Amino acid sequence: MAVNGSTVDAGKLADFSAKALEKMGVPEEDARLTARILVAADLRGVDSHGVAHLAPFYIRRIKDGLINVKPQIKVISKAPGTAIMDGDGGLGFVVGYRAMEEAMKRAEMTGAGFITVRNSTHYGAGAYYAMMALSRDMIGISLTQGGVGIVPPGGRGKGVGLNVISVAVPAKEEAPFVLDMATGVVAGGKLELAARNNTPIPKGWAVDMEGNPVTEVAKATGGILPLGGTPQLGAYKGFGLTVLVDILCSTLSGGFTVPEMNRELSARGKSSHFFGALRIENFMPVEKFKQRMDVMIKAHHNLPRAAGVDRICLAGEVERETERKRKSQGIPLHPAVVASLKELAEDLGIDYNL
Amino acid sequence: MAVNGSTVDAGKLADFSAKALEKMGVPEEDARLTARILVAADLRGVDSHGVAHLAPFYIRRIKDGLINVKPQIKVISKAPGTAIMDGDGGLGFVVGYRAMEEAMKRAEMTGAGFITVRNSTHYGAGAYYAMMALSRDMIGISLTQGGVGIVPPGGRGKGVGLNVISVAVPAKEEAPFVLDMATGVVAGGKLELAARNNTPIPKGWAVDMEGNPVTEVAKATGGILPLGGTPQLGAYKGFGLTVLVDILCSTLSGGFTVPEMNRELSARGKSSHFFGALRIENFMPVEKFKQRMDVMIKAHHNLPRAAGVDRICLAGEVERETERKRKSQGIPLHPAVVASLKELAEDLGIDYNL
Repeated sequence: MAVNGSTVDAGKLADFSAKALEKMGVPEEDARLTARILVAADLRGVDSHGVAHLAPFYIRRIKDGLINVKPQIKVISKAPGTAIMDGDGGLGFVVGYRAMEEAMKRAEMTGAGFITVRNSTHYGAGAYYAMMALSRDMIGISLTQGGVGIVPPGGRGKGVGLNVISVAVPAKEEAPFVLDMATGVVAGGKLELAARNNTPIPKGWAVDMEGNPVTEVAKATGGILPLGGTPQLGAYKGFGLTVLVDILCSTLSGGFTVPEMNRELSARGKSSHFFGALRIENFMPVEKFKQRMDVMIKAHHNLPRAAGVDRICLAGEVERETERKRKSQGIPLHPAVVASLKELAEDLGIDYNL
Repeated sequence: MAVNGSTVDAGKLADFSAKALEKMGVPEEDARLTARILVAADLRGVDSHGVAHLAPFYIRRIKDGLINVKPQIKVISKAPGTAIMDGDGGLGFVVGYRAMEEAMKRAEMTGAGFITVRNSTHYGAGAYYAMMALSRDMIGISLTQGGVGIVPPGGRGKGVGLNVISVAVPAKEEAPFVLDMATGVVAGGKLELAARNNTPIPKGWAVDMEGNPVTEVAKATGGILPLGGTPQLGAYKGFGLTVLVDILCSTLSGGFTVPEMNRELSARGKSSHFFGALRIENFMPVEKFKQRMDVMIKAHHNLPRAAGVDRICLAGEVERETERKRKSQGIPLHPAVVASLKELAEDLGIDYNL
């Protein structure tokens, strides 16, 4: 499927990524899982969280000893519906996948399963874990610390984490509802994308060290603003959401908090998560629920539209369309990403045959 | 505590409100509970959700037959951690209180209790129910449909509900974290407040029927914008959050959806909610968790501040200070609210002795 080196087949891209991870000492099963989750993001059009990060972020961090490729993941549980998981510094993809499985296992028993996770690392795009619930007829929830980056209302410079909320809900004929949002005005990955494409960013996304809004990524040294941007337009809400995610991920799990991450060497690169699953059948017959979802989604589609607007989209619809297209036509990769993968292949002594 | 008719004692205000509800046929226990929840909002400074609504909203709706003062509340459960509750059209305060009790009872058993509620009515400020979890050393969650009002990105005129997210988390010395946010740029109550005080509203809060932003409440006929305001500044996130709340409250419970509320007579005035509780002790010792909360909160307080900013506040801090002040000094009521309560007293034949 390789077309002039920039449109690649998803399966081949996953095979390549897995091979690279195996070369770094990641066990085969974990490498394949990680590659699958990375490529799933590319398929859904979330280019900021896909294979673009493989070489400069994940492989780099394994080389730097910041990721434990053979973690002993532990589950500590005192109640049927809840548990803490210790990821032992493993790849966030592997830890996150197992934690979401654990949450769903508990939801099978009690109706609601919730797992908070410490000592994990960056787990890519959160939607993947939430979407694991779809085929199990559950509502899936995945929250994660997203590194340091949000400027709180009244604050100056980076403070609390740019945390992420992901929730997936199955529908019948319509696309599943998949919310996958950073609690900032914009995900950190979008700034990287703007830097890569050399495009300006909208005023209200980020500030410099003095707290002034900027439109050049290079000057966005202060940090990203919380959803809402200014206090008058609800920045306290976005700030509240990001603190809430931090509480559920790190305060509740015993994981590293943002101040600890800034201070302690052992916290470098660590991340905490939180997963939840609600079993739909315990509330109402799954078929009826999915029909109700379709009705709700269609009602949104049929709302009156502003001039010039073709359609009203719910969360996850555009991503599903992109996924269908890219599954058949391939994933377009930015030349800089192709270059980084080719360099990685050479570095690790594996074939670049995409 | 009555000072020139506009600052009143919380206890007396609750007694008066309960008496008025009893006159309308609400059983004593339910009337006292409802009054307590209304006054709790006034105490916390959430004037938009307190006794200002008693006469023109709740009493009015009881008179109009839109609220069942003696509901037969049912709990339907198929799993230890979850249940559906049918509120039988009762006062939202009564239904909400019982549903949150039910969620906490289940969290005692399984660690995580989640209840979705149909056939309820407006339940006031959501923080009250989430905060019920604080004394039980749990994390409390309360979501509700908030009536029709948000303009979706690309939409024109009111569509999906202006839904509300409330979460409460206990701390040790610091104020508990209490997030209580509408998923719009601003709560509907704030527009009522601006109308009452005859003050302009910021651009970005609401639009007219053509989708144009307005600064006069009277012209805000189109509806309130979702958190984020414009798509570029994250309106899809606020829109996604409000749809998520609707799914958990109404799609999952079998309650009325927004299109049904606009169409069906039996749906008039109805509301659906969703409650959750997570038992902290099942994750880590409660004392340790509360200490970790304090550390996290203090770290936020100590972040560098922008010029002219005195402090960085977390969700619920300002409300706790207002509550302490108003508990000792009384609740200041707007003259229009005093007038509505006096009129209510005369109408129902009860004493106005505040």
